[in-house]
Amino acid sequence: MIIIIRNNSDRTQVDNLINWVKGLGLDVHDSVGAKTTILGLVGDTSKVDIDLIKSLDIVESVKRIQEPYKNANRKFHPEDTIVNVAGHLFGGDNFQVIAGPCSVESEAQIIEVAKAVKASGANLLRGGAFKPRTSPYAFQGMKAEGLVLLKKAREETGMPICTELMNIMDIDLFQDVDMIQIGARNMQNFDLLKEVGKLRVPILLKRGLANTIQEWLMSAEYIMSEGNQNIILCERGIRTFEPATRNTLDLSAIPIVKQLTHLPIIVDPSHASGISELVLPMSLASVGAGADGLMIEVHNDPTKALCDGAQSLRPNMFEDVMRKVERMLPLVNKVIR
Amino acid sequence: MIIIIRNNSDRTQVDNLINWVKGLGLDVHDSVGAKTTILGLVGDTSKVDIDLIKSLDIVESVKRIQEPYKNANRKFHPEDTIVNVAGHLFGGDNFQVIAGPCSVESEAQIIEVAKAVKASGANLLRGGAFKPRTSPYAFQGMKAEGLVLLKKAREETGMPICTELMNIMDIDLFQDVDMIQIGARNMQNFDLLKEVGKLRVPILLKRGLANTIQEWLMSAEYIMSEGNQNIILCERGIRTFEPATRNTLDLSAIPIVKQLTHLPIIVDPSHASGISELVLPMSLASVGAGADGLMIEVHNDPTKALCDGAQSLRPNMFEDVMRKVERMLPLVNKVIR
Amino acid sequence: MIIIIRNNSDRTQVDNLINWVKGLGLDVHDSVGAKTTILGLVGDTSKVDIDLIKSLDIVESVKRIQEPYKNANRKFHPEDTIVNVAGHLFGGDNFQVIAGPCSVESEAQIIEVAKAVKASGANLLRGGAFKPRTSPYAFQGMKAEGLVLLKKAREETGMPICTELMNIMDIDLFQDVDMIQIGARNMQNFDLLKEVGKLRVPILLKRGLANTIQEWLMSAEYIMSEGNQNIILCERGIRTFEPATRNTLDLSAIPIVKQLTHLPIIVDPSHASGISELVLPMSLASVGAGADGLMIEVHNDPTKALCDGAQSLRPNMFEDVMRKVERMLPLVNKVIR
Amino acid sequence: MIIIIRNNSDRTQVDNLINWVKGLGLDVHDSVGAKTTILGLVGDTSKVDIDLIKSLDIVESVKRIQEPYKNANRKFHPEDTIVNVAGHLFGGDNFQVIAGPCSVESEAQIIEVAKAVKASGANLLRGGAFKPRTSPYAFQGMKAEGLVLLKKAREETGMPICTELMNIMDIDLFQDVDMIQIGARNMQNFDLLKEVGKLRVPILLKRGLANTIQEWLMSAEYIMSEGNQNIILCERGIRTFEPATRNTLDLSAIPIVKQLTHLPIIVDPSHASGISELVLPMSLASVGAGADGLMIEVHNDPTKALCDGAQSLRPNMFEDVMRKVERMLPLVNKVIR
Repeated sequence: MIIIIRNNSDRTQVDNLINWVKGLGLDVHDSVGAKTTILGLVGDTSKVDIDLIKSLDIVESVKRIQEPYKNANRKFHPEDTIVNVAGHLFGGDNFQVIAGPCSVESEAQIIEVAKAVKASGANLLRGGAFKPRTSPYAFQGMKAEGLVLLKKAREETGMPICTELMNIMDIDLFQDVDMIQIGARNMQNFDLLKEVGKLRVPILLKRGLANTIQEWLMSAEYIMSEGNQNIILCERGIRTFEPATRNTLDLSAIPIVKQLTHLPIIVDPSHASGISELVLPMSLASVGAGADGLMIEVHNDPTKALCDGAQSLRPNMFEDVMRKVERMLPLVNKVIR
Repeated sequence: MIIIIRNNSDRTQVDNLINWVKGLGLDVHDSVGAKTTILGLVGDTSKVDIDLIKSLDIVESVKRIQEPYKNANRKFHPEDTIVNVAGHLFGGDNFQVIAGPCSVESEAQIIEVAKAVKASGANLLRGGAFKPRTSPYAFQGMKAEGLVLLKKAREETGMPICTELMNIMDIDLFQDVDMIQIGARNMQNFDLLKEVGKLRVPILLKRGLANTIQEWLMSAEYIMSEGNQNIILCERGIRTFEPATRNTLDLSAIPIVKQLTHLPIIVDPSHASGISELVLPMSLASVGAGADGLMIEVHNDPTKALCDGAQSLRPNMFEDVMRKVERMLPLVNKVIR
Repeated sequence: MIIIIRNNSDRTQVDNLINWVKGLGLDVHDSVGAKTTILGLVGDTSKVDIDLIKSLDIVESVKRIQEPYKNANRKFHPEDTIVNVAGHLFGGDNFQVIAGPCSVESEAQIIEVAKAVKASGANLLRGGAFKPRTSPYAFQGMKAEGLVLLKKAREETGMPICTELMNIMDIDLFQDVDMIQIGARNMQNFDLLKEVGKLRVPILLKRGLANTIQEWLMSAEYIMSEGNQNIILCERGIRTFEPATRNTLDLSAIPIVKQLTHLPIIVDPSHASGISELVLPMSLASVGAGADGLMIEVHNDPTKALCDGAQSLRPNMFEDVMRKVERMLPLVNKVIR
Repeated sequence: MIIIIRNNSDRTQVDNLINWVKGLGLDVHDSVGAKTTILGLVGDTSKVDIDLIKSLDIVESVKRIQEPYKNANRKFHPEDTIVNVAGHLFGGDNFQVIAGPCSVESEAQIIEVAKAVKASGANLLRGGAFKPRTSPYAFQGMKAEGLVLLKKAREETGMPICTELMNIMDIDLFQDVDMIQIGARNMQNFDLLKEVGKLRVPILLKRGLANTIQEWLMSAEYIMSEGNQNIILCERGIRTFEPATRNTLDLSAIPIVKQLTHLPIIVDPSHASGISELVLPMSLASVGAGADGLMIEVHNDPTKALCDGAQSLRPNMFEDVMRKVERMLPLVNKVIR
């Protein structure tokens, strides 16, 4: 951490600051120029409150050099983390596709879709039981009943299931789920992060729609600091000024995240654009960018989907995506296992 | 709602769509041009799923004309709502200032600040007991003990208290709080919104940092649809590309919100910029824009604030803000009562 | 175009508006509901001033249905445009790589880089002679002399050259250039667009860093409406809140642009991120997304590059990018010719 | 400038970098920690190419401490600059209102509006002769003829005139204009900036719609480095995700700009929102934020405005804005002279 001292600051106050910083167990390098005094803090600065230092009268600005996350930091854990979801591996040279409908609607629907996506090569089944919806008047999901149907589909097909948890009070219902999704709107629901941090089930942590990569990794750190290291990140589009797509899929985030952390990262190309024709090209683009997997919405009859219909593929379109993704994987040294 | 049909669509499919829409209890105006067929849906379209219609093959685009919120909509409730917080009124020609520290730190601190801001003219006391922090290693607030200290400060000064609720599981602790704040990161924590909708205590609903005005009003609608009409909106800055301020205070939102809804709206100029020198000019700007009040962080010793230090004013700076705000209020026909 | 009339508007004023619109040669469909009157304008609305209509007291909102561009619109020109740059084709199933240094610095440098990128498979040479720089104190390019050196490199290698024009007054110097680049900062320099519209040389039109896809296509329309149909679009990243990359490469723009227009589109993965390690993954991602080509910065010695050094590859890294891109092209049915 | 060296970098390479930096005439403070080596560059770093240093293999990151602008920097010029536009002062405790139509349309129109806004208290007349329009099919202004009409209005009313220059080739036509506007889309048209830098006429430099405050000040620096110190900045809204307003007026920019530079800054509340009802509240908000003036569109008959109609006030609404602004000015210690 670098602290830039204001010109003409009182030296005693600067010394007080230096002593306070040393009291936190850090070394301070003091670099006095003709016009500028710079303090370089050396040691573990992850617990230093940058805003507090900024508020001091003698401080012009503070710049963090070290990343404020530790468990998630690749510097301290250079090898890729491999997350095992009921026998399917994420990370390293593994590639996984999670597919299924936006919402669970009925036993027939979820089983039919599960069989279809399995036949095309998806290894995991997704489906929303609890749905975060912008409007209180929109369908909010089948809730507990939806979880029961997902488990029936798992029984029928052998596919592990992934579904979203929105509320700490529902956590007991999710004990038997294979991967718990934390949605974009809950990426900074810190109490929820701490609770899933106490579990050992893999967590799919979606990026908030206006959150920086650093904030995202800090949310992973919340989970990891409670003990759960089984985290898979999921890029799903950020909010920008461009109205042609619902969100802007930030694929540059993938190689950046790979540099910063050892955790696997997948892409959800369905939600980002909100346009089903974009799922194929953005899936291939995600593979090219180095993603460890995809999460794709598939519906047996998109015109009847109760939510997010515009972004759902039909099974035959999904089959096409899978075949093209598979042809591309050897070029990036990835394998679906 | 307007549905634009794709050129050369099959007429039978268009008729099926028309019949389906009529089945929802809506009238359909069918406007067939040489190149374009347009369907105008007339009636209460707030429950129509726009994404579902967009997903149909015959549909080029769908545009909503009516706002999807009803309880919050000024069209159906033209007069300003006045929210009464323990005798202090928000909305109409009333102006209120809520002040206090970012976090409650000790009995002495909260009481000292409360007395100081009351002496300067603030009517309500703010202070964080449960703190949402980006880092798991940062101070997370005094929690239940902080609430106890806030209530002591209320007893001591007679000021109603406003503090943030982050977690449904803590809701019982907030029964006796005068105004519950829902923070920016929880603006779309829909389960939390529903829970506070069941209370009758006034809710201060902060705008999410990447949420549109319409999404914000939909979150108000979540609370109102459960029965709680006592909502005060709070603009606190949105996320943009500009790095000079932490967030960009969107003051145009104030007159826009006033057109769209009857709910009162205040501004938090402290969090938006993260720079204490900006609190005075942005407070006066907020008054000029038509805000119904301000929420300002004040700390007895900013260099010791445990969080968000950079944006906290000292009591003497707050006194200056209050005197200037008061001189300005008659120009916008507002009164602190 | 759809005009939503305010509730309770005076019918005479509505009729006046209808007559005025008809006077523009358009048909009007009048749809009167219990609460809402909607006018549907049918015909060529590209010349209708949407802001003028919005300003009328009786108008609540106006929504455009047809795209305001014609020459660039795929609806009126369904087949892909193929742009021929000195024998190298852009669009359709063709794929092209343009490579070279950020700035031309010396004869030796530009010839060395040109030979290296040609050996790796690039068909066109790029290099900046006139450089747009944020700071007046930064190197502004070799200007006319740089153009001379570029032409020497063309003579030496046979590669067509692409370089940026910033100023109408320099246009004569560019007569012999094979492809003229209009940079992101000049995407809405409308006088410059009109001037290059009068030429027949192919134009590489970069997307402005905060411009929507529609604005970008309107800028193409400026060029086309003057007669020059030889336009290649170039996505190079947009400005967002994310600080980890200089800009956010918007790869979803590629399939969207392909739907809206018949013009070819390539990607510049070097400028978007500002990080040379990202060039390879983002190049592969661009191919996956359906791009018609790439523009990549390559420098013989990045540590000596006079500008934009951080994003320049060395020739051996470029060789690696080319080999991997080539292996991927068959999967998206593209060929380098 | 601070350079963070990568862990385990070769010391010889670090020494080479240090020597290279010293060769630029800068001092280097070398701070070697257990894990991190930090170089602090002391001296005039405005000409150091930050991107070049970032591109070095041994460099992890580079952070600028000093602002890269000098002429515009308040640190080197602490007192406010006062710009004299034909006898009317901008900056210090002066407040100025520039008003007039979006476009000059006819002699009668511009003279009528000029008289009306003068009667209400505006000191300067604005009006567009050359108009930057997104669409090539939209009205592009009366051009040279519009300038003639503006000068007639000046003769008739005595008001100095301000109008936009888009193209270097038109510069001779602007010799007699009192203040030349550089529009948002040309904020980084560097050749145009250099040309107006050679004049001594005051320049109104609008902020680009996606430009940071630092980039804006660098554009002012372009003009100043050519010799023209008569610059007035104009905030007019930035591009964000919020669709309710055309742009988001960034009023926090005003106190920030006041800290960073000595140049005056005014606000254009008309273009930012695109909604005429917002002009009054955002004008008062601008005064509260500390602006040195306003630029407001006024049209004699908004329903007939040929461009930007939605944001034009009628003269009677402008009269109301002026009376309220005047009442507010004493509170911020400003005077219209």
